[in-house]
Amino acid sequence: MNPAEIIRKKRNGGSLSREELEFLVGGYIGGGVKDYQMSSFLMAVYFSGMGYDETSILTDVMLRSGTVVDLSAVPGIKVDKHSTGGVGDKVSLILAPMVAACGVPVPMISGCGLGHTGGTLDKLESIPGFRTRLSLEEYRAVLDETGLVMMGQTDEIAPADRMMYALRDVTATVESIPLIAGSIMSKKIAEGIDALVLDVKTGRGAFMQTESKAIELATTLIAIGKSFGKKTIGFLTDMSQPLGYAVGNWLEVMECVDCMNGKEIPDLMKVTYVLGGAMVMMGGKASSIDEGMRLCRRAIESGKALEKFRELVRRQGGDVSSLGDRRTYPESGTILEIASPAGGTVGSIDALEIGLAGITIGAGRMKLGDVIDPKAGILLRKKVGDRVSAGETLAVVYTDRAEIVPDVKLRVKGAFRIAAGPVQTPPLIRAMIDDEGVHPWAGVERKTPV
Amino acid sequence: MNPAEIIRKKRNGGSLSREELEFLVGGYIGGGVKDYQMSSFLMAVYFSGMGYDETSILTDVMLRSGTVVDLSAVPGIKVDKHSTGGVGDKVSLILAPMVAACGVPVPMISGCGLGHTGGTLDKLESIPGFRTRLSLEEYRAVLDETGLVMMGQTDEIAPADRMMYALRDVTATVESIPLIAGSIMSKKIAEGIDALVLDVKTGRGAFMQTESKAIELATTLIAIGKSFGKKTIGFLTDMSQPLGYAVGNWLEVMECVDCMNGKEIPDLMKVTYVLGGAMVMMGGKASSIDEGMRLCRRAIESGKALEKFRELVRRQGGDVSSLGDRRTYPESGTILEIASPAGGTVGSIDALEIGLAGITIGAGRMKLGDVIDPKAGILLRKKVGDRVSAGETLAVVYTDRAEIVPDVKLRVKGAFRIAAGPVQTPPLIRAMIDDEGVHPWAGVERKTPV
Repeated sequence: MNPAEIIRKKRNGGSLSREELEFLVGGYIGGGVKDYQMSSFLMAVYFSGMGYDETSILTDVMLRSGTVVDLSAVPGIKVDKHSTGGVGDKVSLILAPMVAACGVPVPMISGCGLGHTGGTLDKLESIPGFRTRLSLEEYRAVLDETGLVMMGQTDEIAPADRMMYALRDVTATVESIPLIAGSIMSKKIAEGIDALVLDVKTGRGAFMQTESKAIELATTLIAIGKSFGKKTIGFLTDMSQPLGYAVGNWLEVMECVDCMNGKEIPDLMKVTYVLGGAMVMMGGKASSIDEGMRLCRRAIESGKALEKFRELVRRQGGDVSSLGDRRTYPESGTILEIASPAGGTVGSIDALEIGLAGITIGAGRMKLGDVIDPKAGILLRKKVGDRVSAGETLAVVYTDRAEIVPDVKLRVKGAFRIAAGPVQTPPLIRAMIDDEGVHPWAGVERKTPV
Repeated sequence: MNPAEIIRKKRNGGSLSREELEFLVGGYIGGGVKDYQMSSFLMAVYFSGMGYDETSILTDVMLRSGTVVDLSAVPGIKVDKHSTGGVGDKVSLILAPMVAACGVPVPMISGCGLGHTGGTLDKLESIPGFRTRLSLEEYRAVLDETGLVMMGQTDEIAPADRMMYALRDVTATVESIPLIAGSIMSKKIAEGIDALVLDVKTGRGAFMQTESKAIELATTLIAIGKSFGKKTIGFLTDMSQPLGYAVGNWLEVMECVDCMNGKEIPDLMKVTYVLGGAMVMMGGKASSIDEGMRLCRRAIESGKALEKFRELVRRQGGDVSSLGDRRTYPESGTILEIASPAGGTVGSIDALEIGLAGITIGAGRMKLGDVIDPKAGILLRKKVGDRVSAGETLAVVYTDRAEIVPDVKLRVKGAFRIAAGPVQTPPLIRAMIDDEGVHPWAGVERKTPV
């Protein structure tokens, strides 16, 4: 075998065998296949695609480049959630303790934010003292003791993915469904999960802006999950406007604590309950998503979800008191109210623009390694469908970067469209997807276990 | 500007500006753009293509990465020929001295053979003592003194092309028309030519196996030539069977000397005269291709072409006596006659298979750096359309590699198809192509200068 021949085969639309993919990925890690050959291969995959079986093999090869965590000593069906990323997507912070409070172990390895979308890791790290760098030993121990664990990727998990992702980032080969799927699933399966729920976002603030691309990605992820014997279902959810009101790491943690204290933020909690209901069902603690959702709601209302979250924060070194007394947290130097230019109804809030504004104020990163200001963020005061009068506050911006105030003011104001007439809010849960296809989602179906 | 953004633009089908191509190619030479970015860019070009203007800019950027030779001190219109390569394609060795004998200066920088196609450089180097490595100073001097010069590429000529070509070879990005065109034209224009004739081969033994791809390449090359103000015309010629009878470096030199001595090998000389006629016309020494062809024929018949060739060999250090007394040349250890398995008419001779057999016997190279045995080769005894009886010799193989005899025997025999009924020989000159389009070629048209 020879790297150029394998690249040529993929370039010409051929399907690669396990031997060929092992030769290529293994050689890349070992140094026999050069980075310029891997990048040309990645671009060939971008154009020629990969079948489900081939993507599963790629995933397996990437997975086996590192440690596959064995969680069999931890009792229960371990279920994780993966989101393709969005603006204000803080779901994991409520979801993981809520599902754990229902008795389903949740092992969660997350990434940091990149571009306009936020990362769970950055949100957790905004909690003073919270350690996201755990050894795999500690990862297992925290899961066993508290029923959940939330940490960052370690060097042992799918090193091939880390190398390939870094290369994709600088060679314009990120946006390829088989490569995205291989990257996500190799890491998730290495975590030691038994089942997985996917939150595949679509709309302006999502990575997959069109619904058809989002469905294609979800279907690929589900097919790979199935090939590994991991129950996988997905939900197609709206990311045309930010989820909830807070965008920015510490602001989002506070919003999550509020929700776990019983505050009803409709879009955020609806997505959280649906994903949670599915996880509880897949974890064997409910016979339907609907029943799982009821158990989740009870975990919130009883305060057990919040208690579980506090337990996790304490176990991973975080300062629990900061979650209660917010006055101890540093304040941003500039607090800026964005006033509505007109009266009417909020017609849309461009999530991408809000996410990009988040980068300029210090709440996100443009490239890996950029430092984040955890207290920076944007707090929406209005969401799509809300009535607003001229001059009323649409959003509040928190930043230490006084110099970018004029720019960010324009950008955030420009993200809001104020309509004179009635407004139709976009459907939040667009569909449920499993290995049988795409199903409409009305809220209570899927009573049978997957 | 940022390399990944430029790659993404090309990947998405955009057209790159001069600034972007300079940034990318210049950065690649300078080290700021990494080889893994260049290779991913090359694969994106493979899939997304490039327009004529964009390909011209790429050519210019590659050309300006090195020295552009100034031949204005040498009187006359300098005309070169480029062939896309074939099996038994020894045309340059007759053509260059023949056209020079007609008074048109021919500056020719050639490559070595790679894969199943031979290279002019290897054929020249099979002449004892012949030096193909000249300085640009000596290149100009030889052209000025003898009216022609034939040498290999130097480090000063289009270094970007050399770097990019080496990368394309190991990343499966060779087969891209804009990249092929940029590579050919950057080198040809750097030579200091005024006009160029192209021999674009098509058929099993050609790089462009289909006629439509060959026409696409020719049209691209002609458009680039025009954009640089260099008169360029092309001929689409057949490469389904080898050209002439000899395949292998020294055998081909001998066949050329025979032709310059007046031997009429129909297909080889027809191609040589047509290309030569066009070169003489473009060099201003004839008013039509037809008249140019007549002058060329006279140069052969008068012995002036051979005299010019001997003058060149002498000037570049070669042993002229070896061209006359062939017994002084070493002989191959194994001489193998391939007998016809049946009687009938030769229906086809697969040029690709003959070329590949040439590699196994030592006459060609699989990869850059492989050493060639100049005396190894295959001498066809029959060509398409010839009658043959069972057991009669189809070809003779010359090699020092006795161990591959059974394999090569099968391979060469398998390249011949013997038909029972009548056989149609493929048209040799398929078309003439200029900046106005593709024209049928009957042999005497194109009386007006280009």
